[in-house]
Amino acid sequence: MKQQLMRSSMEELAKIEQVGKPRVVIVGGGFGGLELAKALRDTNMQVVLVDKQNYHTFQPLMYQVATAGLEASAIISPFRKILKDQDNLSFRMAEVLHVDTAAQVLKTSIGLIHYDHLVIATGATTNYFGDEEMARHSVAIKSVEDAVELRNTVLSNFEKALQVGDREQLNSLLDFVIVGGGPTGVEVAGALSELRKHIFPKDYRDIDFREMDICLIQSGDSLLKGMSKEASEKALEYLQEFGVKVLLDRRVKSYDGYTVTLNTGEKLITRTLIWAAGVAGAPIEGIRPESIRKGNRYTVNVYNQIAGYTNVYAIGDIAAMITEEYPEGHPMVAQPAIQQGKLLGENLTRQLAGEPMRPFRYHDQGAMATIGRNHAVADLKLGGKEWKTQGFFAWLMWVFVHLIALVGFRNRLAVFMNWTTSYFSQERGSRYILGKRREPVPAEDPAASKVVA
Amino acid sequence: MKQQLMRSSMEELAKIEQVGKPRVVIVGGGFGGLELAKALRDTNMQVVLVDKQNYHTFQPLMYQVATAGLEASAIISPFRKILKDQDNLSFRMAEVLHVDTAAQVLKTSIGLIHYDHLVIATGATTNYFGDEEMARHSVAIKSVEDAVELRNTVLSNFEKALQVGDREQLNSLLDFVIVGGGPTGVEVAGALSELRKHIFPKDYRDIDFREMDICLIQSGDSLLKGMSKEASEKALEYLQEFGVKVLLDRRVKSYDGYTVTLNTGEKLITRTLIWAAGVAGAPIEGIRPESIRKGNRYTVNVYNQIAGYTNVYAIGDIAAMITEEYPEGHPMVAQPAIQQGKLLGENLTRQLAGEPMRPFRYHDQGAMATIGRNHAVADLKLGGKEWKTQGFFAWLMWVFVHLIALVGFRNRLAVFMNWTTSYFSQERGSRYILGKRREPVPAEDPAASKVVA
Repeated sequence: MKQQLMRSSMEELAKIEQVGKPRVVIVGGGFGGLELAKALRDTNMQVVLVDKQNYHTFQPLMYQVATAGLEASAIISPFRKILKDQDNLSFRMAEVLHVDTAAQVLKTSIGLIHYDHLVIATGATTNYFGDEEMARHSVAIKSVEDAVELRNTVLSNFEKALQVGDREQLNSLLDFVIVGGGPTGVEVAGALSELRKHIFPKDYRDIDFREMDICLIQSGDSLLKGMSKEASEKALEYLQEFGVKVLLDRRVKSYDGYTVTLNTGEKLITRTLIWAAGVAGAPIEGIRPESIRKGNRYTVNVYNQIAGYTNVYAIGDIAAMITEEYPEGHPMVAQPAIQQGKLLGENLTRQLAGEPMRPFRYHDQGAMATIGRNHAVADLKLGGKEWKTQGFFAWLMWVFVHLIALVGFRNRLAVFMNWTTSYFSQERGSRYILGKRREPVPAEDPAASKVVA
Repeated sequence: MKQQLMRSSMEELAKIEQVGKPRVVIVGGGFGGLELAKALRDTNMQVVLVDKQNYHTFQPLMYQVATAGLEASAIISPFRKILKDQDNLSFRMAEVLHVDTAAQVLKTSIGLIHYDHLVIATGATTNYFGDEEMARHSVAIKSVEDAVELRNTVLSNFEKALQVGDREQLNSLLDFVIVGGGPTGVEVAGALSELRKHIFPKDYRDIDFREMDICLIQSGDSLLKGMSKEASEKALEYLQEFGVKVLLDRRVKSYDGYTVTLNTGEKLITRTLIWAAGVAGAPIEGIRPESIRKGNRYTVNVYNQIAGYTNVYAIGDIAAMITEEYPEGHPMVAQPAIQQGKLLGENLTRQLAGEPMRPFRYHDQGAMATIGRNHAVADLKLGGKEWKTQGFFAWLMWVFVHLIALVGFRNRLAVFMNWTTSYFSQERGSRYILGKRREPVPAEDPAASKVVA
């Protein structure tokens, strides 16, 4: 076997040093990075995909995992499975520590990776705007692990609530405050209100769920900023219909894990504050700071080249391509990332063939958000025409679009079955407390000689 | 709302104190505890089920989760979902700390729980026979969290192996040692050999999987002790056919996280030792020590009453009912637990009606173990007749029996789909590294200036 191993190592080395084959290293396997990797499939390039997880995450359905609607496994798919037929690609599970753009080498948690072309597709991370206390006490929904933690925390709260007599303590466990009225905030608030109506009262018959408040706090005067007035208004109407308390024009001043203080002086009590108020790019150390702009995004040109470089690119949320139409860069959602990944794949191929690259132009297909079963809002752009719809039809479209987009047939089918089942039965299957959860300060002395059942 | 809450608390209190209704407290929602809870459904008793998890686990398929064949969620189901229609039952998620049998009260992590009848159904836990070092360094498969950890560890090992040049270091990551030749050990060894053949070589094309050794160590001279000679021999033959190195008549003397030393002096190198060599009962503090026998099991009479008590029972793995036919108590598997839970439900009902209880008699239906796709062994007992079969037909029966037994329609369907898909595609979908994993001592300095891709 030893000889065999030597041969295998030699082959690996030969593969790595394939002379003349330009090597593209992609950091981050989100929508943009994955699309780029696929676009380079039948080219004469070596591709290395680096990600700190071994799976791709379908982010738009993360809120479903957080609210026990879908299992974590339904929205993730291992990179090695997705890309198994791509012979020119190597995957490396690693954290990127630093890039040396002069030497063209990435320093990672597992060692060095050389590149000819580097593509940064690290996406965005939760932005607490420097508020350390908020970062420590609140729950975010930016990764699958976050989402699972939130699910476990919500369910554990109710298990604890059964033992609590004091009314304020009880409400601190039952009430939820969501900060941020974008799609994630709206979707989580809607999903929680559905759980309150259909699931929790059956699971916890001893709790009076009229005590459970769901508060959504939005700094501006409307929800879903960036969508149409019709969509914003209808989303507000649906949420209020579902019993969500929407507080507009408010900001959270502080949160200590128990009391939320707003800029208006109002106070709310909750042990679970869900932070969906902001994201910022996740830049890599070693790129010149002059290229980083507001929100930690890289300034890129129309070819997604980072300002000051010709062989270092950024795509997706981390890239800010400033145009007349998008003076702040494109919205930080899936579509620009996917389209940039695809075009960059073509452009790298063109470069290699000595052809000129083509500038990026965003094809905005519109936006959607779902508030709950049968209730969604959609602003669609089809062939230059705008089309706005809200309600059942928008919801059907939302389901259809998300099923189509989900990675991998098996996941698609599992999600579809999950949804079909839960649609007809009003049931949610993923109500496990499995894995990490936040332990709030004990509501009462656990060793208290108190009868709990 | 305040008034409403007061009323709700009063109702809860009233429910707890329902005068005259005897209260059965069941500790542990495994096969036995769950069966008992269900059997008490239409009785005039109050039932409290206490478990430290909020979900029931279908243990026989745990090895599938550990080997990325099934998602964790496929084999667990929330108690509140399973028991939602059972009005006389309360579930409490809590750890039991102590029982005061004189005062008839359980002390738990969340407070006190009074009982008229106490049923201990806490099952079994991994037995390291006092070897602390083994407990620290090895991986067990006794809970879903264990199984997920093992899956994550196996996959992380291969991600790490890609960066390792040194041959011994490489083998320490690729090789697996399984201790214990019972059903779990045999099933894990078989599943790993299938992964080695069909999955890993595609996922990790740079690794030479002829270097991956799977060792199964068994202290006795045959596998599957307790099953027929035919089953033992065929299991050994199948495993050897699949390339598993089965070492019989060996014991592990020590394991430091890297080197396994056997009683024969032989040494094996592995960073992953899977401990499937022993289980012991998980008793509760406060029960008289005279009632605890070998293997930490409670001595019970034919009514499952623990020796020395009339209203404290033990069922399942934790109970040792010594009979002529079973001088060591019944085997620690699902069937005795289920049958005892069912009968105890009937006996408690009889007691309440002033009727005499019926003694337990185990209906042994036989045993099965699967070694891999199309390969299983089965010793069946049907109507007093024994019937032994091995191979494809035994495997079909194994699949059928496990599907039938799985809790909840949705899970059954999901598992069925998973199996159908993986049967025809030789694919395994759950290859995520999500959640806890064991970090072995770094194989090489992670900051080493070493090219890894």
